[in-house]
Amino acid sequence: MHSSAAWIIQKKRDGAELTSTEIQGFIHGVTSGEIADYQATAFLMAVFFKGMTLSETVALTEAMLKSGDRYDLSDVPGVKIDKHSTGGVGDKVSLILAPLAAACGLKVPMMSGRGLGHSGGTLDKLESISGFDVKLSASRFREVLIQTGCAMIGQSERIAPADKKLYALRDVTATVECIPLITASILSKKLAEGTQGLILDVKVGSGAFMKSRDQARKLAKTIVQVARKMGISCRAMLTNMDQPLGYAVGNALEVAECVSVLRGKDRSSELSSTDLKELTIQLCAQMLVLGKVSRNLAEGRKLAQAKLADGSAWEVFEQLVRAQGGNVGQIQNTALLPQAPIQVPWAAKKRGYIAKMDTESIGRCLIDLGGGRKKASDPVNPAVGLVFHRKLGSQVRSGDTIATIHAASREHLPEIEARFHNAIEITSTRKPVPKLILETL
Amino acid sequence: MHSSAAWIIQKKRDGAELTSTEIQGFIHGVTSGEIADYQATAFLMAVFFKGMTLSETVALTEAMLKSGDRYDLSDVPGVKIDKHSTGGVGDKVSLILAPLAAACGLKVPMMSGRGLGHSGGTLDKLESISGFDVKLSASRFREVLIQTGCAMIGQSERIAPADKKLYALRDVTATVECIPLITASILSKKLAEGTQGLILDVKVGSGAFMKSRDQARKLAKTIVQVARKMGISCRAMLTNMDQPLGYAVGNALEVAECVSVLRGKDRSSELSSTDLKELTIQLCAQMLVLGKVSRNLAEGRKLAQAKLADGSAWEVFEQLVRAQGGNVGQIQNTALLPQAPIQVPWAAKKRGYIAKMDTESIGRCLIDLGGGRKKASDPVNPAVGLVFHRKLGSQVRSGDTIATIHAASREHLPEIEARFHNAIEITSTRKPVPKLILETL
Repeated sequence: MHSSAAWIIQKKRDGAELTSTEIQGFIHGVTSGEIADYQATAFLMAVFFKGMTLSETVALTEAMLKSGDRYDLSDVPGVKIDKHSTGGVGDKVSLILAPLAAACGLKVPMMSGRGLGHSGGTLDKLESISGFDVKLSASRFREVLIQTGCAMIGQSERIAPADKKLYALRDVTATVECIPLITASILSKKLAEGTQGLILDVKVGSGAFMKSRDQARKLAKTIVQVARKMGISCRAMLTNMDQPLGYAVGNALEVAECVSVLRGKDRSSELSSTDLKELTIQLCAQMLVLGKVSRNLAEGRKLAQAKLADGSAWEVFEQLVRAQGGNVGQIQNTALLPQAPIQVPWAAKKRGYIAKMDTESIGRCLIDLGGGRKKASDPVNPAVGLVFHRKLGSQVRSGDTIATIHAASREHLPEIEARFHNAIEITSTRKPVPKLILETL
Repeated sequence: MHSSAAWIIQKKRDGAELTSTEIQGFIHGVTSGEIADYQATAFLMAVFFKGMTLSETVALTEAMLKSGDRYDLSDVPGVKIDKHSTGGVGDKVSLILAPLAAACGLKVPMMSGRGLGHSGGTLDKLESISGFDVKLSASRFREVLIQTGCAMIGQSERIAPADKKLYALRDVTATVECIPLITASILSKKLAEGTQGLILDVKVGSGAFMKSRDQARKLAKTIVQVARKMGISCRAMLTNMDQPLGYAVGNALEVAECVSVLRGKDRSSELSSTDLKELTIQLCAQMLVLGKVSRNLAEGRKLAQAKLADGSAWEVFEQLVRAQGGNVGQIQNTALLPQAPIQVPWAAKKRGYIAKMDTESIGRCLIDLGGGRKKASDPVNPAVGLVFHRKLGSQVRSGDTIATIHAASREHLPEIEARFHNAIEITSTRKPVPKLILETL
């Protein structure tokens, strides 16, 4: 117990602005254990209700960053730009974007997370490629980054340990949905990885953490402001998450979809990766402008499209997988990726148009199938998942396959089918499909 | 970690009403340790911001009561009525009131607390009488109650352990000042001691926890409502705490003042116990009406005044001290109580009228002198304290003694004198003295 901890909690509780010394001291105390976890969580709940000013959020981010190591990439040639997504269902953008931005001339030092709840995680996707190592040492991380132009790793124990501790506490005390806490959590890690610029993909909609556009915009604004105060260039896009991105949901299935896009095979597929590809190109264009490789977004788009089309991005991805110890054979022939033994179609019960998808519920199907996590320590089965043959706005006849369920056993199929039944709404008239990119700030 | 704890925290955070099963489960989990302390404190902070409905507060009180033992006094003859004060400076009412109410025919099973912060505690006062045992066994508690009509003990480990745990957590997480939490904390203990009725003395003013009359009234109303829902008759008085009650502040000094009132010696003293005596008589009258010994307050007052004047209350107090192992010689001759070696007058610096006392600051002088506690584990020196020769409204000339400081050493005298200087305001015109009893509900 720390003598001034109760006082700092009270000050925040009563809505006063904390000084950066107070925040620094509190976070230091929480990390060292001098301040008890039960004081940390009371503080977090007070922040939930009272919020934080911009200066407080900057101080919190800085304190969390300073709680651990920081990669120094200043002597890695090239401009380092990263992307962060607030998470969604089928959001596999990073696997295409990192090699694509690298192919365009940027360096992408990407530190990603694991799936939790209805939302997937880049590390789980990469680990469905056998041997792929997301726990590189700091020196190996640099090497891979220099060699291939990108590197994709997890948050090591030594990066922002205050964030690790606070995140675990927030997760069990209903203090996750809080803009200053989310901001500090995201940015402390991004600043630690050594990036110079950041494009933020804030998801909005039925499959996003932020269900409301206002809340999403508020979060985006806060992150952009804090990032800039802390010396990294930052822009944010609000993008729609009212349906899964692309067609695949599930770790190995998503890797296969990414390979299809990287190799240009999506054009001949009956399955649609249009939204995934469009979003990736847009994000890449933003990164290229942030990194001053392109003068404007139009130029950035053009360059990104070209590097995707000519196979350069695919080459970088192959190099990345090889450099991080992954089995390249599995991405060259995705049939070698883990496959689920049971594949069952889920068909439309009536004719009409797909009007609505409860995307969070769809994300939870993956947990039911064993491919997602309820809690951080759960194992995941890389093979299972869902493949969507139809998306929002599609016309269907009764009996048409909307999605194929890839399952490890027949055990949970009835509950997944029931979930689908409730999650997907078919109406007799076609409703407008929400715009993919809602706004940029 | 308890699976549903985070859900209950979230429900409260979002302002929904918890069921009694949820509250019961949460409190049970906190007491057993299944729910982590860091979840308990996040919950407490959510309650701080969102409050609790009457039903929730009843459920919380019940859960805290059920977390431990409950005295069964049903076969103790007579009506059991107790008093609770929210605490103040110089509030020594219990020491006179318990024997007085017993002398009037009630049974008073009184479970009290220790001083903390600026506020004194009955147990500390009693323990300045050498040998006085506040840790009676349940059977000895009954015996003393039957024999003398009252018994005065502390909260044993087995009484409301949930309250013990939650109070300790509240103390270090800025969640003390919260009406439903205060209500459940007070009533769970009062219900456990086996009382049938309760008169509540809610202090308001510069030396009270509740500085505002509105807040005090809200607390009083909540406690009265919850107590009645739980089957005990209850009334509350809002009383003024803009100056110390009576003339003494400090444990042995306060015992001596009580003895003076009980023996009728206050009438010949130059020191004034008028407010203390008046409040005690009023509270006793309320208890006599609650216990149906008197038909109305006027009758109750009359009986209480008579039993104080004829020495009956003093006799009960002597019996009580003897029954609980205390040195009766020390109350028969209060010069034998612990005495501070240094006694220094604090004099008025100018002429005028005492217009204002920062009573919380005066209470903190006792901590500076070693007679109070900053934290629960601090030892207290029974001998030290303050004796007020003048009270609010008194006229003073420069050099007149306002208070005598009883100290163990000269070490802290300068800071105490400085504190006094800031705490006591002398004005050239006389300001009205606040009413002692503000309202009854």
